[in-house]
Amino acid sequence: MRIALLSPLYESVPPPRYGGTERVIGALANELVRLGHDVTLFAAGGSETAAKLVPVYPYPLRMAMTRSQLEFEAPHLHLKMLADVVDRADDFDIIHSHIDIWTLPFISACPTPTVLTMHGRLDLDVVRTVLPLYPGTKLVSISDSQREAVSDLDLSWAATCHNGLDLSAYRGASAGRRCRDYLAFVGRVTPEKRPDWAIEVARRAGMPLKIAAKIDPLDWSYWVDEIEPLIARDPNVEFVGEISEAEKPEFLGGAAALLFPIDWPEPFGLVMIEALAAGTPVIALNNGSVPEVLEDGHSGFICEDLDQMVVAVGRIEEIRRDDCVDESQRFSATSMTASYLAVYENAIRDRHAVAGVGPNKLDLRNSSRGTRLRDPVKPEIVDTRPGGNPRSLTI
Amino acid sequence: MRIALLSPLYESVPPPRYGGTERVIGALANELVRLGHDVTLFAAGGSETAAKLVPVYPYPLRMAMTRSQLEFEAPHLHLKMLADVVDRADDFDIIHSHIDIWTLPFISACPTPTVLTMHGRLDLDVVRTVLPLYPGTKLVSISDSQREAVSDLDLSWAATCHNGLDLSAYRGASAGRRCRDYLAFVGRVTPEKRPDWAIEVARRAGMPLKIAAKIDPLDWSYWVDEIEPLIARDPNVEFVGEISEAEKPEFLGGAAALLFPIDWPEPFGLVMIEALAAGTPVIALNNGSVPEVLEDGHSGFICEDLDQMVVAVGRIEEIRRDDCVDESQRFSATSMTASYLAVYENAIRDRHAVAGVGPNKLDLRNSSRGTRLRDPVKPEIVDTRPGGNPRSLTI
Repeated sequence: MRIALLSPLYESVPPPRYGGTERVIGALANELVRLGHDVTLFAAGGSETAAKLVPVYPYPLRMAMTRSQLEFEAPHLHLKMLADVVDRADDFDIIHSHIDIWTLPFISACPTPTVLTMHGRLDLDVVRTVLPLYPGTKLVSISDSQREAVSDLDLSWAATCHNGLDLSAYRGASAGRRCRDYLAFVGRVTPEKRPDWAIEVARRAGMPLKIAAKIDPLDWSYWVDEIEPLIARDPNVEFVGEISEAEKPEFLGGAAALLFPIDWPEPFGLVMIEALAAGTPVIALNNGSVPEVLEDGHSGFICEDLDQMVVAVGRIEEIRRDDCVDESQRFSATSMTASYLAVYENAIRDRHAVAGVGPNKLDLRNSSRGTRLRDPVKPEIVDTRPGGNPRSLTI
Repeated sequence: MRIALLSPLYESVPPPRYGGTERVIGALANELVRLGHDVTLFAAGGSETAAKLVPVYPYPLRMAMTRSQLEFEAPHLHLKMLADVVDRADDFDIIHSHIDIWTLPFISACPTPTVLTMHGRLDLDVVRTVLPLYPGTKLVSISDSQREAVSDLDLSWAATCHNGLDLSAYRGASAGRRCRDYLAFVGRVTPEKRPDWAIEVARRAGMPLKIAAKIDPLDWSYWVDEIEPLIARDPNVEFVGEISEAEKPEFLGGAAALLFPIDWPEPFGLVMIEALAAGTPVIALNNGSVPEVLEDGHSGFICEDLDQMVVAVGRIEEIRRDDCVDESQRFSATSMTASYLAVYENAIRDRHAVAGVGPNKLDLRNSSRGTRLRDPVKPEIVDTRPGGNPRSLTI
């Protein structure tokens, strides 16, 4: 299958440090190539991928742009990327965009079926305003819980494809370790990730806490006013700063547990699956995707409040680290890629059904703008003839 | 000709009070209809036009949205409008967008030739970043001077089409007046329009000044800190607030002169042509479009500094008010519409040339996405056969 993947341009694929979406896209691209697909990745320059890279901008935008530029110029660079991909849409059997709601205006006129994964939170006003303008667009969520914020809207969901990563670097990261004498917090220093709650849980449980976290310029006053003083007065808390991907397996694998006291509907939470892959159980608050990623009492503990989290730290030895590693398999790049391939195939089949021809008869080069998909496809007109496997469609 | 006009959604067409772009679009739409064209206007609900109105949003956005919504949601509503127009592009022979740089990503994939008028200032960082991404797009400027801010960039200009308005309400607005005993300032209370300089010129010239101006919420502190105190201490200055279109002819027609001490490269400056149409000369600083709109010593005075403006007030009787009215004819809706029709015809002819078929042979319904216009068209392949008048093309 000839697949175009469109990544946000803020970080390279994969990002050297913090940045979830681009890491997931990187894993998807590599796995699709491994499976023999012809993958073109549109992403920031400096990206490293097994796919054919189209460097849309020479540098990751987060590195090259001011905050105002990120707000007001960056959208236009993404729109240009989308326009360029539509211009060469005939080069692809499927276009898979990770460019959020900016993608929506291009889907209808695009002759190639387009899949859009929503990576961010959906409760933002702008998202709630824009998504219903395109009611027929089939969206992909990264967790079922992500959709709850828009469950009152008339939207069309193709699937949930849980995020996945190449977790091989995490395997065995904790093997042979004897002394797992600290709790870990990994992420950003930002109010909704609640590093303050992690500090409180560790203090009350009597365990050291190591915080490996990025401080975004936007969160600087939160760090200075709220978190730095908490750390300064607690000798059991160590702030190790932002760590690289290469450092993460050892950091997570060496921990007794990952604390994930998340205080917002986190759409996915990649660090949970990284911890599991390192054999490290997760003690999380019951928010967002947490119950989809963790199995309570098996790969960690899902808690309702800080009291329960403190109790869970005391019970952490009940979790078998091998079970955590096993659980992480559900979130491998392989699993995620299989989900997406099913979505691609459905999208291609649906588009053919709308065009009113069987997939084997369709010449995408001539399908042109006539095959517009605005409304949900009626299932009864899907082509189900033998031999109609759209995987054989590559032209 | 079947013409789609796309207006910004911030104001209705025409806007009830301040708002230049939508007034120009309204004038263009009405004049095109008067000439017998089939015009569809995509604009905010509440618009009043001789064209077929597609109300893209129920209300003008400026009325319905917060500042944050205007910044972050409004662009998506404009993108949706553009997507919808591309979806029904075959209904039109020409698409004329006034939606600024947001239009650019849609032009290449659109099967109908698209003309884009840039109404705003071009020296903004985002404009300078985005325009060169689409070097082949033929842009229309509203004055020659507007282009100067981007003269170092590799852009492609189709034409300058000076703004025009239906100025009939201004004709005779000053006839029979004996006593034109005040100077007028019309616009917004904002630093680049320099109401403070207008106040200084009037004071030094010993003439009363009437200021009819909108105070935008963004400019509130400028008003309170800078302008209100100036007015409070000068009994010769009267602030009459924002006036309606209906009040403007009398207000301008009753003035000895309009002061236009503009301190930025104003792309056009509609109030100058309104003053001229009312027979009122304009005393302006030499900035932006001023030398394209005024003829120094004939329809007003073009000054280099405030000293010259003060002198010009003393010489205002040298300007014949009939000459001002005559000069305003260059900026009638009729003149502007004639310019745009020439641009439309060229765009249609260019597109046909790219498609490699003569205009009379082209069926736009099948022209599809193949006829993409990315690079400037070489003039030698323009179809010049007799009978090839694209005006006859309506299908």
